[in-house]
Amino acid sequence: MTSPASEDRHHDARQHGPLDRLWAVVPAGGAGTRLWPLSRAGAPKFLLDLTGSGRTLIQATADRLAPLVGERVVVVTGAAHEAAVRRQLPHVAQVIAEPSPRDSMAAIGLAAARLELEDPEALIGSFAADHVITDEEAFAACVAEAAEVAARGLLVTIGIEPTHAATGFGYVRGGEPLPGFATARVVTEFVEKPDAQRAEAYVLSGEYRWNAGMFLVRAATLLDLLAENHPDLAAGLRAIAADPSTLEERWPRLTKIAIDHAVAEPAAAAGRVAMVPGPFGWEDLGDFTALAAMTPAGPDGMRVLGDDSLVLSRDAHGLVVPAAGRTVAVVGLEDVVVVDTGDALLVTTYAHAQDVKAIVDDLKRSGRPHLT
Amino acid sequence: MTSPASEDRHHDARQHGPLDRLWAVVPAGGAGTRLWPLSRAGAPKFLLDLTGSGRTLIQATADRLAPLVGERVVVVTGAAHEAAVRRQLPHVAQVIAEPSPRDSMAAIGLAAARLELEDPEALIGSFAADHVITDEEAFAACVAEAAEVAARGLLVTIGIEPTHAATGFGYVRGGEPLPGFATARVVTEFVEKPDAQRAEAYVLSGEYRWNAGMFLVRAATLLDLLAENHPDLAAGLRAIAADPSTLEERWPRLTKIAIDHAVAEPAAAAGRVAMVPGPFGWEDLGDFTALAAMTPAGPDGMRVLGDDSLVLSRDAHGLVVPAAGRTVAVVGLEDVVVVDTGDALLVTTYAHAQDVKAIVDDLKRSGRPHLT
Repeated sequence: MTSPASEDRHHDARQHGPLDRLWAVVPAGGAGTRLWPLSRAGAPKFLLDLTGSGRTLIQATADRLAPLVGERVVVVTGAAHEAAVRRQLPHVAQVIAEPSPRDSMAAIGLAAARLELEDPEALIGSFAADHVITDEEAFAACVAEAAEVAARGLLVTIGIEPTHAATGFGYVRGGEPLPGFATARVVTEFVEKPDAQRAEAYVLSGEYRWNAGMFLVRAATLLDLLAENHPDLAAGLRAIAADPSTLEERWPRLTKIAIDHAVAEPAAAAGRVAMVPGPFGWEDLGDFTALAAMTPAGPDGMRVLGDDSLVLSRDAHGLVVPAAGRTVAVVGLEDVVVVDTGDALLVTTYAHAQDVKAIVDDLKRSGRPHLT
Repeated sequence: MTSPASEDRHHDARQHGPLDRLWAVVPAGGAGTRLWPLSRAGAPKFLLDLTGSGRTLIQATADRLAPLVGERVVVVTGAAHEAAVRRQLPHVAQVIAEPSPRDSMAAIGLAAARLELEDPEALIGSFAADHVITDEEAFAACVAEAAEVAARGLLVTIGIEPTHAATGFGYVRGGEPLPGFATARVVTEFVEKPDAQRAEAYVLSGEYRWNAGMFLVRAATLLDLLAENHPDLAAGLRAIAADPSTLEERWPRLTKIAIDHAVAEPAAAAGRVAMVPGPFGWEDLGDFTALAAMTPAGPDGMRVLGDDSLVLSRDAHGLVVPAAGRTVAVVGLEDVVVVDTGDALLVTTYAHAQDVKAIVDDLKRSGRPHLT
């Protein structure tokens, strides 16, 4: 029933719809010290296969984005990881190497400034390199709606349905529905990581969602919003984009600020932020407890990330990562975490998963930075 | 004040005292599966340095015996370990390789039969290859008294003061003092490993001591006592000693029996066993809990057997054996046991130390005997 003419129209509509101008910007930073000794300064978690899928987290991120943006992906990472990112993602359009870490506004803003120059109507969608999303179709539908909203000049955040009263994430509060869209709402407030009591109240209210740092916006809108509050930073990023040879000189002088503080919070206060609910499973794999939750339990109750033939357990439950290829036997421990790598071994519990970071500090202090 | 004549007399007395006819017999068997993965079939615990002293358990045993017997040491071990024993103990007089394990009576009896041929008045003292003794002077004094008693034709066991109501050892009950000796008593009873309630009663009574398998006896007396209850076994052992070329043929037909059952229990019933109390620290290092008890705790509360610079701990107590040379970090665990070796890793707790044996069985069953 489709005539060649209607096919052409359809084709034209796709060519000029917001998704066709969307670029994925993937900030790939953070050492993931709470996942030591798997994650190291030289091999941070986004470069690792932490789900046993055969793809690293950044590869899975690119795979998930491919149906939406194809190869229109810009990865922004530390200079130390540029080569590894290019090896893992040979087909992405651009890899921007930051000379030094200057927080998320500079990283994403530089990508935005470059894309704005190429296409003044370009949309960007920022997606962290190390998140896990379990329903990719729902993700794609959500991003498509967010792109439509972003094309209207709003900053659009994707709000994750909280599964528990987490104190480790910021929250975003949804207000009135946005007319003309299926699920989008106006955002009335961004809130930083709450204490346990407030987190509980947010979740019970039904009005708050997790701010997972995923947002879509016109590149030019982002920089214009930034210019209202941090004109020097916006100008600095646009100047680097206009003359990349000035990167090394200008970069260290850019204001170090998170994008939420620099743009999202003031824009929300001004009513210029929308939220599209993300009806999909999401996990940031921040520590070994989160990793365990993603790893199915075997018949003996032990969760093994890797070759489960290497693990023997008796009266034991928890997570074992036999990454060194050695046999690991665990007897009589609950909620234990055993991470076995070639040069370092960690033994802890779910309850102490957050304390692993302190071991990394201990290693640095005791003259063993090569293990971190 | 000492004249040459009195020196000579002293010298003569030593030359002809019981200690001068004493040979140490060191049965070196047992895989030590509860100390896996440190202890392996190919490297049983007596071949390992489990105390961090720089000497293996069998070397420490020979060191402890040297002031008493010099090089008059006979080690009886499996054929598989003969070369390792000779390497570790280049100066011991004899190493007897058992063609196959035939329990303690055959092992010690063969050594006795050989020594009886060389010297009809020879005394033997049997000392396991893998025990740890902390007061070597008290040990030497105890053995000297036991040798005097044994020279009178009794079987003399060394009774260890119980430190707790252990259910893993047999007990020996001391009766009337033996006239003419400082501490020796008649033994009225040998009892096998008791249940917890009986063990408690034994310890409370003050009459029972642990039977640690250390005893002294004239070689000929041992074989004569054996001949009363197991004449074929005594004859077989004496025949092998008379013609060593018959070892391979006769050995597999010898009765497989523990020396306690074959000789000590019937002799005690006949009033022919004495006990000399052993007033020294003794440990059989049967499992990782015993090993932990021997290993001092560091300032952070963790006990490290090996290079403690490899171990980092936070809110953790227990035993770490970093035998693979890798860094081991332990966070938030009580009474944990972490044993890190080149090809296998064990994580367990003191309370489950006895269950480690089951892992060795699991490895054999699952086609990984090379790890056991």
